[in-house]
Amino acid sequence: MKDTRVSVVEVGPRDGLQNEANTVSTEDKVAFVDRLAHAGCQRIEVSSFVAPKWIPQLADAEEVFAAIDRRQGVEYSALIPNVRGMERALLCGIDAAHVFLSASETHNRKNVNKTIAETLSALRPVVELAHAEQLPVRGYVSTAFGCPYEGRVAEEQVVGVVTSLVDLGVDEISLGDTIGVAVPTQITGLLAALAGVLPVDRISLHLHDTRGTAMANVLAGLQAGVTCFDGSLGGLGGCPYAPGASGNLATDDLLYLLSRMGYETCIDEDKLAETAAWLEAVVQKPLPSHARSIARRASGRA
Amino acid sequence: MKDTRVSVVEVGPRDGLQNEANTVSTEDKVAFVDRLAHAGCQRIEVSSFVAPKWIPQLADAEEVFAAIDRRQGVEYSALIPNVRGMERALLCGIDAAHVFLSASETHNRKNVNKTIAETLSALRPVVELAHAEQLPVRGYVSTAFGCPYEGRVAEEQVVGVVTSLVDLGVDEISLGDTIGVAVPTQITGLLAALAGVLPVDRISLHLHDTRGTAMANVLAGLQAGVTCFDGSLGGLGGCPYAPGASGNLATDDLLYLLSRMGYETCIDEDKLAETAAWLEAVVQKPLPSHARSIARRASGRA
Repeated sequence: MKDTRVSVVEVGPRDGLQNEANTVSTEDKVAFVDRLAHAGCQRIEVSSFVAPKWIPQLADAEEVFAAIDRRQGVEYSALIPNVRGMERALLCGIDAAHVFLSASETHNRKNVNKTIAETLSALRPVVELAHAEQLPVRGYVSTAFGCPYEGRVAEEQVVGVVTSLVDLGVDEISLGDTIGVAVPTQITGLLAALAGVLPVDRISLHLHDTRGTAMANVLAGLQAGVTCFDGSLGGLGGCPYAPGASGNLATDDLLYLLSRMGYETCIDEDKLAETAAWLEAVVQKPLPSHARSIARRASGRA
Repeated sequence: MKDTRVSVVEVGPRDGLQNEANTVSTEDKVAFVDRLAHAGCQRIEVSSFVAPKWIPQLADAEEVFAAIDRRQGVEYSALIPNVRGMERALLCGIDAAHVFLSASETHNRKNVNKTIAETLSALRPVVELAHAEQLPVRGYVSTAFGCPYEGRVAEEQVVGVVTSLVDLGVDEISLGDTIGVAVPTQITGLLAALAGVLPVDRISLHLHDTRGTAMANVLAGLQAGVTCFDGSLGGLGGCPYAPGASGNLATDDLLYLLSRMGYETCIDEDKLAETAAWLEAVVQKPLPSHARSIARRASGRA
């Protein structure tokens, strides 16, 4: 029988808020994370330990971690750029470390001012610190399906980067369609190319719906055995008036597809929808998910 | 080798404009159809011969048909509700007749004030008139995956309606996800249930992206052998500020997926994009497709 369990990594509190122009209060961030956990989210990326000068929106990572109500069975993770960030994160008691680099040299250089090789070297002690504390490490591979500067990224290039991360000891890979260009054949092809590198149950898809292909890519992933997808509640981080133009795949829309296809996620759709409505009030603007559009229309606030 | 040809029925001039609040001039409608044909669209639903009192936006069907520049190889079709509409359409020289009914009784009654059985009886002479003129007939089955009044529609119910249409002599069926609730498993299931009723190359999918699942449903359709999809350029007919909340799947977004997956449609993407930009100027509001959002952002008018 097909395994129908699918897990979702909720990246709204980090990836979503990082891309919001308005800063959200620490209190609201804590409430956001706690509401997600209450709705059944089992993997929540809480914040980032990137230097505050680079991402001021998430400068309160320590305060957020100190105030959240830790639930049993929930993994509270954070984005970690380097050893300094890892040291801060360990003091906060994170449950998992998320590191990142790009599959394309140009994007990686623009993002972290290093070559891919230099980034891999810099990540080694980060992974070692995490593993010394028995923490799992997730590695984001951005621009895995296309780069804003280089265009299409060759499969071999991505396979090389993933292999290097696995060699470093990274436990799980999240393949990012950072600019939302991927189509299902690319998903299927890259997953096949990675078959010898790490098991598919250690690969997640981090999709953007820029060109309307994210959900088709989810389907291609499911068919290839992927059991973990990243989502941002309400599509937080995207622009509501440019549908899907920059945001992550919306967790609420993802849940609609998964639950009606018979997959189990442990997430309560009603509670998640309540949290999305609450979140919209917090950020004081319409969120771009289809689910929120429907809810606003139903309440006469389309 | 897999057949990579996919056809698209462009329903923007009929289904799209019918759902636009602002009336578009006859001249612009003619230009719209001619631009679509020029871009390579081979199947265009030009207008509707429903009584003008019901759909005043399309009251100029005769004028539009008289003025379009007919291209060799392009099928210019129209929506036909009854014998009176068919007689008007025949005088216009349509290439194909599109008839319609719903899979659910309540939706059908609200739409045409008849039971499904009464609708089928009323369609018989329409199909006969079309066939007497050697015109192919396409039958739309609305609410094939869900009804706003009855909820989920049983597969057997849809199979029964499709079977009745095939028995009437309808040549092709377009399964409509009218309220955009379908998920890929429903697409796969219904197509399998219809396997004994008519060949898959005579089944089209008419999808709405209300919940973000349209493109995943396209993928499920392609995998099941469907080679024809309906689209509305730019997502015309939907609301740009409620992404996908009511509109048809956008042809420009569909083309992105199809072409990058290696399917051939004969449609020139650049010319289609130009037409979408032109159309946006005509209707004087942003169109909801992802492609238009990207184009507006690129030109600084997000």
